[in-house]
Amino acid sequence: MSTRPDGFYDLADFTRDEVRDLLALAQRLQDHPEPRALTGRILGLLFMNPSLRTLASFQAGMARLGGSSFVITPGQGTWQFETRMGAVMNGSAAEHVREGIPVLASYCDALAIRAFADGKDLASDLAETNFNGMAALSPKPVINLESAANHPCQALADWKTLDDQAIPATGKFVLSWVNHPRALPLAVPAATVHMAALRGMEVVVLRPEGYALPSAIMDKARAAASASGGSVTETDDADAALTGAHVVYAKEWGCTSHYGDAAADLALRSELSHWQVREATFGKARTDARFMHCLPVRRNVAVADEVLDGPRSLVLAEAHNRMVVQMAVLHRLLAGRQA
Amino acid sequence: MSTRPDGFYDLADFTRDEVRDLLALAQRLQDHPEPRALTGRILGLLFMNPSLRTLASFQAGMARLGGSSFVITPGQGTWQFETRMGAVMNGSAAEHVREGIPVLASYCDALAIRAFADGKDLASDLAETNFNGMAALSPKPVINLESAANHPCQALADWKTLDDQAIPATGKFVLSWVNHPRALPLAVPAATVHMAALRGMEVVVLRPEGYALPSAIMDKARAAASASGGSVTETDDADAALTGAHVVYAKEWGCTSHYGDAAADLALRSELSHWQVREATFGKARTDARFMHCLPVRRNVAVADEVLDGPRSLVLAEAHNRMVVQMAVLHRLLAGRQA
Amino acid sequence: MSTRPDGFYDLADFTRDEVRDLLALAQRLQDHPEPRALTGRILGLLFMNPSLRTLASFQAGMARLGGSSFVITPGQGTWQFETRMGAVMNGSAAEHVREGIPVLASYCDALAIRAFADGKDLASDLAETNFNGMAALSPKPVINLESAANHPCQALADWKTLDDQAIPATGKFVLSWVNHPRALPLAVPAATVHMAALRGMEVVVLRPEGYALPSAIMDKARAAASASGGSVTETDDADAALTGAHVVYAKEWGCTSHYGDAAADLALRSELSHWQVREATFGKARTDARFMHCLPVRRNVAVADEVLDGPRSLVLAEAHNRMVVQMAVLHRLLAGRQA
Repeated sequence: MSTRPDGFYDLADFTRDEVRDLLALAQRLQDHPEPRALTGRILGLLFMNPSLRTLASFQAGMARLGGSSFVITPGQGTWQFETRMGAVMNGSAAEHVREGIPVLASYCDALAIRAFADGKDLASDLAETNFNGMAALSPKPVINLESAANHPCQALADWKTLDDQAIPATGKFVLSWVNHPRALPLAVPAATVHMAALRGMEVVVLRPEGYALPSAIMDKARAAASASGGSVTETDDADAALTGAHVVYAKEWGCTSHYGDAAADLALRSELSHWQVREATFGKARTDARFMHCLPVRRNVAVADEVLDGPRSLVLAEAHNRMVVQMAVLHRLLAGRQA
Repeated sequence: MSTRPDGFYDLADFTRDEVRDLLALAQRLQDHPEPRALTGRILGLLFMNPSLRTLASFQAGMARLGGSSFVITPGQGTWQFETRMGAVMNGSAAEHVREGIPVLASYCDALAIRAFADGKDLASDLAETNFNGMAALSPKPVINLESAANHPCQALADWKTLDDQAIPATGKFVLSWVNHPRALPLAVPAATVHMAALRGMEVVVLRPEGYALPSAIMDKARAAASASGGSVTETDDADAALTGAHVVYAKEWGCTSHYGDAAADLALRSELSHWQVREATFGKARTDARFMHCLPVRRNVAVADEVLDGPRSLVLAEAHNRMVVQMAVLHRLLAGRQA
Repeated sequence: MSTRPDGFYDLADFTRDEVRDLLALAQRLQDHPEPRALTGRILGLLFMNPSLRTLASFQAGMARLGGSSFVITPGQGTWQFETRMGAVMNGSAAEHVREGIPVLASYCDALAIRAFADGKDLASDLAETNFNGMAALSPKPVINLESAANHPCQALADWKTLDDQAIPATGKFVLSWVNHPRALPLAVPAATVHMAALRGMEVVVLRPEGYALPSAIMDKARAAASASGGSVTETDDADAALTGAHVVYAKEWGCTSHYGDAAADLALRSELSHWQVREATFGKARTDARFMHCLPVRRNVAVADEVLDGPRSLVLAEAHNRMVVQMAVLHRLLAGRQA
């Protein structure tokens, strides 16, 4: 396991066997509920950004294990948070994370944090400057609810979904860029390409020019692939990518050639509205190819109704598995501990 | 009981005897608390519109039965929801109810939904197009927290309040339109007139010209009355309506002659500010006539302080009974089930 | 104890020995958790103003004692509240506290309320017109989560923090005004000066001209001091105040010479930016002098990073003790009662 402080930061902190153990625990808790495992345990949920699945599934998961949770959303019933170290706080933010994080941590047994990318400086976002800075302030185990370039809970749920569907560990997994009204962060594509590589799959990243995944993300995925017997390549050739695919995983992200430049991104994507997953997208894929997406999804912009509502779609299974795998993460971190 | 999928959609899905059974269960839970009845059960609460009583009473009721709940408010910490089928989602809504509803349902044992009327198309609102479309997406039992033209939890609480006060099942029940700064939905008047009719009361709807309840609402209430020995009439003659009344139930709603036309509604109601319940309103009612309102109420616009703060008022009892009867609904839906 | 209705309104409702008993209970619950003490009990939390510590620590504290809570934030998912008695409610507020408070109270076993000062009329704020008016509407015990001129939970947590640090009951306690971008309420300075006085300390209020604490606040603190053997003085002489201090407690508040006049306050404080606690502030204090603040704090405006991040700072201990002492308050109010 990880050499970091206790918590759940990154699937890359685990070997493939350790992930399989965690998924086995998830399955065990699904088959044999433990409604008292976390009696008296409290999870703090800190959302710097919006949420649906994460917000609901963590509360529900804690409750199913007998624990409790509280939700804090700075700027909404709670003071806005300042994250810059050394800031002279004469603006709108009334509370610094240097107080906010350890204070919240002192009320709970684990602190789960969502903090999206700033979307301005690629190196800073890839280094997880913001999230790691916040996590380091917590004396309690931290759970990553999506950071600038990671979303380990989603990746773990997606892995379980692939297993549940008996998709071969060596199957072909196509991560396809799709269109969206605006630039979105790299968290899910980064976590997804790494997860599929660590599972041992033949991973192909299909994306238009200007949207290549940063080398730090690709290198990390390739390292995982080499340990697991998989592979990671990228291309803008849809036919080549999709031929023989077991899975098409659609995701929106912002242009990386002009990272953080909204105008450049919009100019590029104005020519890319055909990057939408439709039934025809699966023409050269395996007959039984499945469709995945982390949600939320812009219907008929990123993905057509016919795919989301058709038999290929696994999106609801992925979302349900969020709760299932998170219960394993919570159980691992909190069961049997002294409250 | 209902032929619909399991849930609590409409008091009209129940016979009078079935309602009485449900109220008996509510009374039993009030007299003999069952703090472990719903251990491990989880209620999802989805609010497309604001709430006070519903938000607090459902959480408190689940907790009193040993269960848990989570609250989702799209647009507030959660992505805005798109409800239109087939929409091209290039606007502000990031999540479609086609994903949002089944995903939330997958985390809980019952999903409670509040979705007010669109207030544009009367036929669509009366058909519950929006709420029924959302409810149909849930594989778990659905509880109606107020839809376009229904509010069955309020109606059930009001029935219990009438019983608690020993108001005769054949008593005279006047639903009186009252003024408000703007047009409000038909949900409570529709549910109230049906409830009182099903209880067997002599129901009179007192309202100004332009505010007649739609025939679909009146016909449904009359069908309930004919099964229960009650009656339903409407009038704009306050004296006739109020004479001998056991109960005056005040409610605000928008003009139905120009449904969805805010300007027309404002023009009409500019002449109607005297439609306010005051102590004098009860001049020809029974001496012991009681006053009801579902809350929230605009004091000194819809109802004068003297009535709300006087001995006739049952508004706090009605609100408290929301929790009491909802516990029976939750118990009926969730107790003894496999989590 | 208090002659008021049951609840937790003001530390001044307790003698020094009663406070010590409450703190002993807090310590006992810390040493010997009682995870079932409040099974089935429900706390309602009503926030008219933002919160972090209070919002999280009360939910966590109830959960640690086996109870539950719900949160209501008018204007955010819940109708805006009207507080003026006799109001004609034709504006934006849809619900009056005359209904809102007793309705919420009817769902829970105790109702906790946060309602900051209006900041317009000093006499009205000092008389707690708003908070007391709301509290009087609750038939259940009320807990003060910060009112116009009080914050008893903070005061109790600060007392425990002083005890935990073995700061002498007769030590010198300097409450120092510090700068802030705008005028803040008198709640914490009022509660703090009284707390330290009741504990028996030598209390000095250090503040610039224009920011003297109102005589009602000083007189109340002096009465507490005279019962406990302490003293309360005020000055604008920093050297005299800080010499020999055991504790410097920093707090921001608005000018009292022109109460409620934002322009006058800004003009005054434009000359007062040097009223910031730095390490140099402690030059004449005891070597082991400690620093306190209730949080949130504007870093490098009110207090320099070097102090907040240095060894003198007790701010995190104070915040953690919020949960610890509130559990004692909740236990005292709710344990052993009939739900």
